[in-house]
Amino acid sequence: MTRHQEKLTRFCAAFIDELALSGLKHIVISPGSRSTPLTMLFDNCPDIKVWMNVDERSAGFFALGIAKACMEPVAILCTSGTAAANYYPAIVEAKLAGVPLVVLTADRPHHLRDVGAPQAIDQIKLYGDQVKWFKEMPPQSDEKHTLQFVRKMARRAYSVSAASPKGPVHLNFPFEEPLIPSPDMDNLWTKGHSGSFYYENELGSIPEHQLFPLLHDIQSINKGLIVVGPVTNEEAIPYINAFAKQCGFPIIADPLSGMRSGDHDKTQIIDMYDAIFREPSIPDLLASDGVIRFGAMPVSKSFSTYLTKVEPKTYLIVDEKGSWRDPTHLSTQMIGMSPISFCQLLTSTLQMTKNDRWLSQWININRDIQKRVKDYSEEELWFEGQAFVEVLNEAKPEATLFVGNSMPVRDLDTFFISQEKKIHPMANRGANGIDGVISTALGAAAVRPSVILVIGDLSFYHDMNGLLMSKCYDIDITIVVVNNNGGGIFSFLPQAKESDRFEALFATSTDLEIEYAARMYKGKYSNPTTWQAFRKELQLANDEPGLKVIEIQTNRQENTSIHRKLWDDIQDIVKARLIP
Amino acid sequence: MTRHQEKLTRFCAAFIDELALSGLKHIVISPGSRSTPLTMLFDNCPDIKVWMNVDERSAGFFALGIAKACMEPVAILCTSGTAAANYYPAIVEAKLAGVPLVVLTADRPHHLRDVGAPQAIDQIKLYGDQVKWFKEMPPQSDEKHTLQFVRKMARRAYSVSAASPKGPVHLNFPFEEPLIPSPDMDNLWTKGHSGSFYYENELGSIPEHQLFPLLHDIQSINKGLIVVGPVTNEEAIPYINAFAKQCGFPIIADPLSGMRSGDHDKTQIIDMYDAIFREPSIPDLLASDGVIRFGAMPVSKSFSTYLTKVEPKTYLIVDEKGSWRDPTHLSTQMIGMSPISFCQLLTSTLQMTKNDRWLSQWININRDIQKRVKDYSEEELWFEGQAFVEVLNEAKPEATLFVGNSMPVRDLDTFFISQEKKIHPMANRGANGIDGVISTALGAAAVRPSVILVIGDLSFYHDMNGLLMSKCYDIDITIVVVNNNGGGIFSFLPQAKESDRFEALFATSTDLEIEYAARMYKGKYSNPTTWQAFRKELQLANDEPGLKVIEIQTNRQENTSIHRKLWDDIQDIVKARLIP
Repeated sequence: MTRHQEKLTRFCAAFIDELALSGLKHIVISPGSRSTPLTMLFDNCPDIKVWMNVDERSAGFFALGIAKACMEPVAILCTSGTAAANYYPAIVEAKLAGVPLVVLTADRPHHLRDVGAPQAIDQIKLYGDQVKWFKEMPPQSDEKHTLQFVRKMARRAYSVSAASPKGPVHLNFPFEEPLIPSPDMDNLWTKGHSGSFYYENELGSIPEHQLFPLLHDIQSINKGLIVVGPVTNEEAIPYINAFAKQCGFPIIADPLSGMRSGDHDKTQIIDMYDAIFREPSIPDLLASDGVIRFGAMPVSKSFSTYLTKVEPKTYLIVDEKGSWRDPTHLSTQMIGMSPISFCQLLTSTLQMTKNDRWLSQWININRDIQKRVKDYSEEELWFEGQAFVEVLNEAKPEATLFVGNSMPVRDLDTFFISQEKKIHPMANRGANGIDGVISTALGAAAVRPSVILVIGDLSFYHDMNGLLMSKCYDIDITIVVVNNNGGGIFSFLPQAKESDRFEALFATSTDLEIEYAARMYKGKYSNPTTWQAFRKELQLANDEPGLKVIEIQTNRQENTSIHRKLWDDIQDIVKARLIP
Repeated sequence: MTRHQEKLTRFCAAFIDELALSGLKHIVISPGSRSTPLTMLFDNCPDIKVWMNVDERSAGFFALGIAKACMEPVAILCTSGTAAANYYPAIVEAKLAGVPLVVLTADRPHHLRDVGAPQAIDQIKLYGDQVKWFKEMPPQSDEKHTLQFVRKMARRAYSVSAASPKGPVHLNFPFEEPLIPSPDMDNLWTKGHSGSFYYENELGSIPEHQLFPLLHDIQSINKGLIVVGPVTNEEAIPYINAFAKQCGFPIIADPLSGMRSGDHDKTQIIDMYDAIFREPSIPDLLASDGVIRFGAMPVSKSFSTYLTKVEPKTYLIVDEKGSWRDPTHLSTQMIGMSPISFCQLLTSTLQMTKNDRWLSQWININRDIQKRVKDYSEEELWFEGQAFVEVLNEAKPEATLFVGNSMPVRDLDTFFISQEKKIHPMANRGANGIDGVISTALGAAAVRPSVILVIGDLSFYHDMNGLLMSKCYDIDITIVVVNNNGGGIFSFLPQAKESDRFEALFATSTDLEIEYAARMYKGKYSNPTTWQAFRKELQLANDEPGLKVIEIQTNRQENTSIHRKLWDDIQDIVKARLIP
């Protein structure tokens, strides 16, 4: 057996195995060459019935018939070329009739497309708007993350086609020759229960037969973590809090979760986790066996790294319907449900055996780090993190703190220590762009009082024109521009060491004078150079209407080294606590 | 016969008649209800052979066979729903094999789509990237411009499918019930020759059998006009000039044509046509029977109006391959060929009987108006048009004059009198946006010397961030900002009279101080308030490197009335010349 065969086999079998685990029972295959690896492995899979049908048009409708009769997803598979086009009538019917079909097409690899190779048509989004979802699959590989991804795509294909309104989905597989797999390899097929991966219920309930295994999974967690990413609805906070209390798990609370401030109980809130996870030994010292995440992935990169290393036995994601946010490919269940409905449903029925030592370990380390960060900020060093400490102190209760992407949201993560005074955090974390931030913050300020935006100079420049809305509609806003003259975040990345072209290609200093922008839009401008002066400007801005621009000039190199020193200190604390 | 039937019949017959005139000889129809009007009228058309085939998949391939055998476009027609999806395999094959197919699908009208009506699938762009061109047709109507449009779409469908590389095109027809047409109506079918509408030849030649009728058409023109719109290649100027001389036609030269300046012979250049065409009696007094246009449509709206009223017997467009720019739907021939190749081919072979009186009429009126405009500009009134007079005077030879859209390009049209000194005009006339103008001009200035941009304040505001490139790369540019505090062009439109919300909804004053923008990007700023001072700033700017911003503040109301007065004067001149 060649390496190529091995990769091809593992890749296809992972996909088919996961389709079977998801519940797929039937596939209708039309014979062809390019689809050989999938055809042979479907035929070898013990749990899926293979039907052969030489005419793809007929095959599509035959599968439609099975799917209509049992109201479960049915797969169809064909080779590349016009074969795939023959599925179109059945796909159109499936879309409109709400019949779940998983359409699989084999394709030439990228280098044989659109270059006149035989039987190679453009299969990317071949069925346009007639399918619910399209995925171009990667070339075959048996790397771990590829196989995880392939399994997730099988789950997703099955789940999306089965989710209301049911309908067809399409996955296109580029295959490189030779096309013969090795169905005799070991461990291709999983036996037995795999849990139901995706629930989706608008009514906020989970069917009995799915609820029991779910409760069982959660109750089996010994060292659990609740993770709360950026959530769109702050009303969920007390429900998540009650659920976490019932579980006895620490709460990893993203700065945009809304959980770090307000009068709710914050005993279990771990706000310093980004610093904790930076210590490389944490995945060994504090390995979790069960993570329950609400909302999007947290901002913290060190958290993602931790998750990938730990690979918790249970990783349950409660997220918006159809959002499928799991770049780690590690989730074991994905629940498309509001956090409120989920917590309401489970909190009262959970019977947990609590691990008090686990929880107190987290609370103690977190407390030590909070203290270190507070001490650090009392030194009043001139660096960017301090701006957040001051802004959080000076902001009025119920103020909205909008932060730019790139550095500001990360600094907020590090310096936002949980507090009683309620602050509403906001940021554009859909695509994490540095564009449009001023306009979005002004949109929020148009309907909310006391909005403070903290933004870097590059992001400020990008949406400078957005300031016009403040002038035209007299919108009140305080904008703190952290001006390090360029893209600060790049100084933390490896390219910073490529110094001769670094400034030109990444840092992109604009050398702009922010003052002119403020003046152009009739804003009040100040440029404090001490934290005392900065606090005074914030206090003035709190009470003044209109646009207030407060510029803080910082130095990228100094800023990087002050940040690094703090993280080093924190790592010492973590080690001192955990290593006897 | 109902009005509905009348509209339905005229609409469909116009389409089919024009397909037949284009050369279509075969259609393969699959029976269905929604396609009834086209089916019955195709069957009635004397020049098209109808083949019936009940299976659309087979019908598609059968048509493919005819088209492959005679290498001419063949049409297929089916009803709405999955019927259309059955064409997909043949369409995919046609695309890749380069076989011309005109795919016609009937559809439900808009109010019956995506609302659960039977047999209504989403047919918009149903075949995705597998067709060369898609057109959603309008609801049936027998209004003149609709019938003109429908004929043009038939021509275009045939021509695009037949143009190299040949392939399928798709037109989708929404039909309202009742679906029965009246094939017995009069004058549905044109008899005889209609000219070959579209040539496309990369080699720059026209086949003999098409060249003869083309020469005949041009030689039959008595009162001809050459129209030169914005052209991308100034090298075409001497060729177009020679062709115009051979024809003896006046040259309507758009300000972006490049024909208004330079050392070529400008005897036949008519640069004041926008003012001439504003006189409503011109379509009667100076009706052309043959227009030959090079490049895009000119900026002048009064020219379009003239064209629509005159409906010249011949309207020949020589334009970039595949651009099909004819919003009037009046073109009689469209030639996808470079102006240079076209003029080279025809100039020497043309045998014209010249109409000297026609030419001298145009030249004389134009001369009178030039004089009036010059007199006007010598008064040195403070209005926007004067800025162009001054800029054209002060610009260095071979300078590039980039103008913003909306008012600047129109003012250039009025005030750019033909001159010996060569000026290269530029503007973004693809989509005519006010966005990105500064960045585009800076891009030009990065590779060309002496670039002057004249731009309105709103367009300046829109792309203010673009100025950064000038600062970062030391790009030399002079920017004249004509600041009338808002969207000046709206003052010329009917909504200007809706005064109470006009300022808020259209004029959108920004009240920006341009100076801050100039300072922010280290530009030199000046704000002259007399034309003498303006000239001095232009002269200084000519010799200074970097960014120079010269702001001219004007008043929208005054500006409108000064413009109006000039046009009134010009109309008097036109009438005096033409009305005995």
